[in-house]
Amino acid sequence: MTQREHSADVAQDFSGIDRASLLAELARCLPASGLLSAEEDLKPYECDGLSAYRQVPIAVALPETEDQVVAAIKACRAAGAPIVARGAGTGLSAGALPHPQGVVLSLAKMRKILHVDPVARVAVVQPGVRNLAISEAAAPLGLYYAPDPSSQIACSIGGNVAENSGGVHCLKYGLTVHNVLRVRAVTVVGDIVEFGNHALDAPGYDLLALAIGSEGMLAVVTEVTVKLVPKPELAQVIMASFDDIMKAGDAVAAVIAAGIIPAGLEMMDKPATAAVEPYVKAGYDLNAEAILLCESDGTAEEVAEEIGRMKAVLETSGATELRVSQSEAERLRFWAGRKAAFPAAGRISPDYYCMDGTIPRKRLGEMLTAIHAMEKKYRLRCINVFHAGDGNLHPLILYDANVPGELERTEAFGAEILKLSVDLGGTITGEHGVGYEKINSMCDQFGSDELRMFHAIKRAFDPDGLLNPEKGIPTLHRCAEFGRMHVHGGNLKFPELERL
Amino acid sequence: MTQREHSADVAQDFSGIDRASLLAELARCLPASGLLSAEEDLKPYECDGLSAYRQVPIAVALPETEDQVVAAIKACRAAGAPIVARGAGTGLSAGALPHPQGVVLSLAKMRKILHVDPVARVAVVQPGVRNLAISEAAAPLGLYYAPDPSSQIACSIGGNVAENSGGVHCLKYGLTVHNVLRVRAVTVVGDIVEFGNHALDAPGYDLLALAIGSEGMLAVVTEVTVKLVPKPELAQVIMASFDDIMKAGDAVAAVIAAGIIPAGLEMMDKPATAAVEPYVKAGYDLNAEAILLCESDGTAEEVAEEIGRMKAVLETSGATELRVSQSEAERLRFWAGRKAAFPAAGRISPDYYCMDGTIPRKRLGEMLTAIHAMEKKYRLRCINVFHAGDGNLHPLILYDANVPGELERTEAFGAEILKLSVDLGGTITGEHGVGYEKINSMCDQFGSDELRMFHAIKRAFDPDGLLNPEKGIPTLHRCAEFGRMHVHGGNLKFPELERL
Repeated sequence: MTQREHSADVAQDFSGIDRASLLAELARCLPASGLLSAEEDLKPYECDGLSAYRQVPIAVALPETEDQVVAAIKACRAAGAPIVARGAGTGLSAGALPHPQGVVLSLAKMRKILHVDPVARVAVVQPGVRNLAISEAAAPLGLYYAPDPSSQIACSIGGNVAENSGGVHCLKYGLTVHNVLRVRAVTVVGDIVEFGNHALDAPGYDLLALAIGSEGMLAVVTEVTVKLVPKPELAQVIMASFDDIMKAGDAVAAVIAAGIIPAGLEMMDKPATAAVEPYVKAGYDLNAEAILLCESDGTAEEVAEEIGRMKAVLETSGATELRVSQSEAERLRFWAGRKAAFPAAGRISPDYYCMDGTIPRKRLGEMLTAIHAMEKKYRLRCINVFHAGDGNLHPLILYDANVPGELERTEAFGAEILKLSVDLGGTITGEHGVGYEKINSMCDQFGSDELRMFHAIKRAFDPDGLLNPEKGIPTLHRCAEFGRMHVHGGNLKFPELERL
Repeated sequence: MTQREHSADVAQDFSGIDRASLLAELARCLPASGLLSAEEDLKPYECDGLSAYRQVPIAVALPETEDQVVAAIKACRAAGAPIVARGAGTGLSAGALPHPQGVVLSLAKMRKILHVDPVARVAVVQPGVRNLAISEAAAPLGLYYAPDPSSQIACSIGGNVAENSGGVHCLKYGLTVHNVLRVRAVTVVGDIVEFGNHALDAPGYDLLALAIGSEGMLAVVTEVTVKLVPKPELAQVIMASFDDIMKAGDAVAAVIAAGIIPAGLEMMDKPATAAVEPYVKAGYDLNAEAILLCESDGTAEEVAEEIGRMKAVLETSGATELRVSQSEAERLRFWAGRKAAFPAAGRISPDYYCMDGTIPRKRLGEMLTAIHAMEKKYRLRCINVFHAGDGNLHPLILYDANVPGELERTEAFGAEILKLSVDLGGTITGEHGVGYEKINSMCDQFGSDELRMFHAIKRAFDPDGLLNPEKGIPTLHRCAEFGRMHVHGGNLKFPELERL
């Protein structure tokens, strides 16, 4: 590599910022209610959905128009101050954690649905629009926006773009990147750019895919054009019980190997159903060591046929009980339990830490067995809810931040899960992003060549490193300090094919 | 933008290359049959599927292993010579047109299928493997590789990755970028990198999406992991006749607006069916001004239900006749006519030029009317076959290169179609890539900000500009000369939403 490597090598120093003149300039370009700088006003912005990390910024900017976003970014750049974009603050990897010398740029006030077009099957929305609000606006046309993170009542589409969010239906319908056609954004120099277009393909390099999942490190999104899909006529879900966690894992692989693409395929272990059931009354089998939720959607004929095939595979895989939702109300109840797993964890434990690794679906049982061993090693409980169909794990480690040492043991527990995910041929994040949380684990995932390439991309968009610094991509120096730098190549380099 | 902009501004000069020592070094690292440099051996490589542009390279390298690819790239880089990767040579935008001072790096000898896994539903193949060969290898498992360019008998997966190829089924199943999970590639400095992984999402920037469709300008692909999908139980296609081209265009929009996602939705005009029918005997309605081919696939129940809905919409839209394929043989015959449109054009005209713009599907009728007017203006015939469902046009302009002035009129005709595509809110390429052919049209499509961003990405991968120079992304200087440089922003910048 012949590019300059300075910013890739060492962390940046922002200590020389003139706060007073930056605040004055921001006040000039934002409405009176659009700039927060008093300690008590900044407090609500000190963390996102991952509350283990907290940091107060120097200010929060709340622009209401794209012009104000441009002006705020230019003001920060002139001052050399970090810019941390923030959506609804529901992120789970501390991607919106403020920088102590930086400004939080909240897009929460930009929440207009600009356009819904049933022929082009798209909606054009501002970044602060809630995920579920898009589907609500499209419902009269028989359409909806497919990606459905558990936080979809609250999370914003701008945040979904930043993290490339998924949801329980992404096995069939894809992640954000598969459902967004165009993104309008402001670069760090204040230029307005558009990535993608209404067509399936676009000429030139695929900057749209590059922007999606870039965690606020390349540009700040001001408008999103999403694909809408027809609402299926019918959906039904099977709840399958297993008396053994390995069998449940193997059943997931068997469903996929049978040529079925379920609309959703989720796994919960016994501690997870035990935590959820008293809270949601979903009707889960509390005697099962693990349950699977396996959904089919489409026309009535298609669903009947697919549910039949799914049941046959699940029975052959050793399911001890199968229940098929008999009404839309029952189907929603089955899912409500799954979607409430995080708050349920919050009810039975003062704190919890949600992990987000992925592994080849073949190895689900193996991972669960390893997590049980780690529970003993770290003396902490863990409940497991998995997007099993796409091998995306969400172990929830339960801890109490007020007990000395528990947070540290929790972090070590989580890091070991992520390390094992990589070792099993998987990745450190399936849908929550790297953020601040998993930046050290990136040194496990990638080698120096890949990291240098990431830094080269970053420099192309943001040469001075002002957009969300110290997130997403670790410096080479950090990996070296972390003791995990590979001299040449990372774990993805010589994959063992049989592990796929 | 603060990056250095030299290579983005002006074309490069490769005249100082020491050919003799480069050839000696290539001979050292390649097998005896793996290096061509005699005039008669180079001749077959002077063009790809777009034969209007021809250029003999200084040599053709045919590596058989990844190590040889690395060595050949290092040799070219040491000599400062351009490297033009080539697959099967079926590309239609002159993306594999040789550089007069460069080496063609053919991946044709790397054609092993390394691994087919029914549980992970993937195949791992070398870049020279033919598109159709993947589906053939997966067929015993009930699986196939979905993207099906018309050239699928001959085109290679490496070329598909380079051009982000589509096919008649990409409306439902997506383009190459939606069906490739991982790409292994060699960078210009000879490093081996891997982009993507088996999971739906990957941490870090989405380099996989960036690599796909990058037309050999970022890295040279040596291995591809593709997604396999279950073969549908049944497929049926409707052939619908229309006595008016505008009605046929509106019917396409109506099918989509009805919430149907056809497995394929193609349009051919009367001159196209007239050219094809004597050759293929597909059974097309030769009295119709346009026909649509509208396919449904899935289980028998689902197909029956969907075909019924499609027929109802097509009838309401004014179809004068509907025929549903009654056997797999008849279905394949209906498609054979569509897939043979290009060779059929070759039968009725000495030469033809295939265009590849996209437009919002609403505006299909309008575009066809405009093309008819251009036929008069340029005194050339044009037959039209469209991937109508995704708004991707393939007008085939018929000409005779031996008639003085016809090629020039053809190029002007083509450029006017592309310009109109952009003006209608579309793009200059849907699936064939920019290559050498459409590089001037990129100045219509993008503004200087977008082009600068493309060049910054290019520099991150290939700072010296050795990989496929003068293709894909125009220099700012070229756009200025071409008289189409926008001072700030391009046509994608302020899209008119109602045109989507």
